Amino acid sequence: MPIDQPIRRRRGRPPKDASDRDDTREALLRAGLEVLTEKGFSATGIDEILRRVSVPKGSFYHYFASKEAFGIELIDRYAAYFAHKLDCILNDASRPPLQRLRAFVADAADSMARHNFRRGCLIGNLGQEMGSLPEHFRARLADVFADWQVRVERCLLAARDAGALSPTADCPQLAAVFWIGWEGAVLRARLERRAEPLVAFGEFFLDAIEQ
Amino acid sequence: MPIDQPIRRRRGRPPKDASDRDDTREALLRAGLEVLTEKGFSATGIDEILRRVSVPKGSFYHYFASKEAFGIELIDRYAAYFAHKLDCILNDASRPPLQRLRAFVADAADSMARHNFRRGCLIGNLGQEMGSLPEHFRARLADVFADWQVRVERCLLAARDAGALSPTADCPQLAAVFWIGWEGAVLRARLERRAEPLVAFGEFFLDAIEQ
Repeated sequence: MPIDQPIRRRRGRPPKDASDRDDTREALLRAGLEVLTEKGFSATGIDEILRRVSVPKGSFYHYFASKEAFGIELIDRYAAYFAHKLDCILNDASRPPLQRLRAFVADAADSMARHNFRRGCLIGNLGQEMGSLPEHFRARLADVFADWQVRVERCLLAARDAGALSPTADCPQLAAVFWIGWEGAVLRARLERRAEPLVAFGEFFLDAIEQ
Repeated sequence: MPIDQPIRRRRGRPPKDASDRDDTREALLRAGLEVLTEKGFSATGIDEILRRVSVPKGSFYHYFASKEAFGIELIDRYAAYFAHKLDCILNDASRPPLQRLRAFVADAADSMARHNFRRGCLIGNLGQEMGSLPEHFRARLADVFADWQVRVERCLLAARDAGALSPTADCPQLAAVFWIGWEGAVLRARLERRAEPLVAFGEFFLDAIEQ
């Protein structure tokens, strides 16, 4: 996480010291994640994020070169957070591999319910918004899906080795299908404010592949 | 399609006559559909839509009470257009029912490719944007999915009657899963600018249910 990267100062009151500066930067990133997982990039104004952390208007550019640079850093941060979450669940040797995927679905349902289904997936949100985002966001977002896909693929390979999938199961393709459908499920769970779409897709997918 | 509903005049130059007014209104709706399927609601300014149809800035409120009312009319129009498209494909008695669903997937892939994968599904776009849309959009969007779902459910029931699905197949649930995953596939197809996510999800779903 590039917390320590050099900061371009542009305008506004300078932060008191390096530690304050890092704290504020961190607070802006946290607030940004919260707002963008709810509302996406286009509908979110920098002012709204600054207000949330009581940072004066105009100070944003002490911390980030642009809203775009802020967006890219949020993608990297969310990708890393979520990859860690996936690893924790999908590498849990105390459960058989397909049970780990079922646990992922249940965890996502709990997590979305905790935020009253207001927050979605940052990568899905931005993916949907690609028509109005800077073009270089596209490859970054696709890379994140590719990374998550590899983590699910490993879990499916372990399931295949354990005999829970057909020996001819195409694990990379199944992992791709999982993420394709999963983002649709997150979208519908937010729209309908209930976990059923997550559970319905998760159960359909897992029941279809389990042998 | 409520083309003839009374129009609240607010400001700007009035249209010359009723026929011109209807033409302009229609042109604004068409342009709105194009832009919103590409960029969504929040990122689209009314000015951009007016520019596309060479209507002077400020005239919008001759035709629509608000951007919100315009959005609701676009939802209704898109829902009706798409329901008709679904019926044409899913009621085509010249093909067995599951082949009709495969034809829907192929048609969607062609249609997205024709627009260079820039345009998505208006209902999916707005569903993803719910966090920043007026709250009453939510029920409208959910109703549209429910309507499309019933049309797919009918096709699945026909497949079950024809012995292509298990006699115990839960057709309403399968139709729900189809739409949940399909919107994810449209999202990924736009992000990656290729049809593979649509085809991958469509094939997985249909292969999983066919007996």
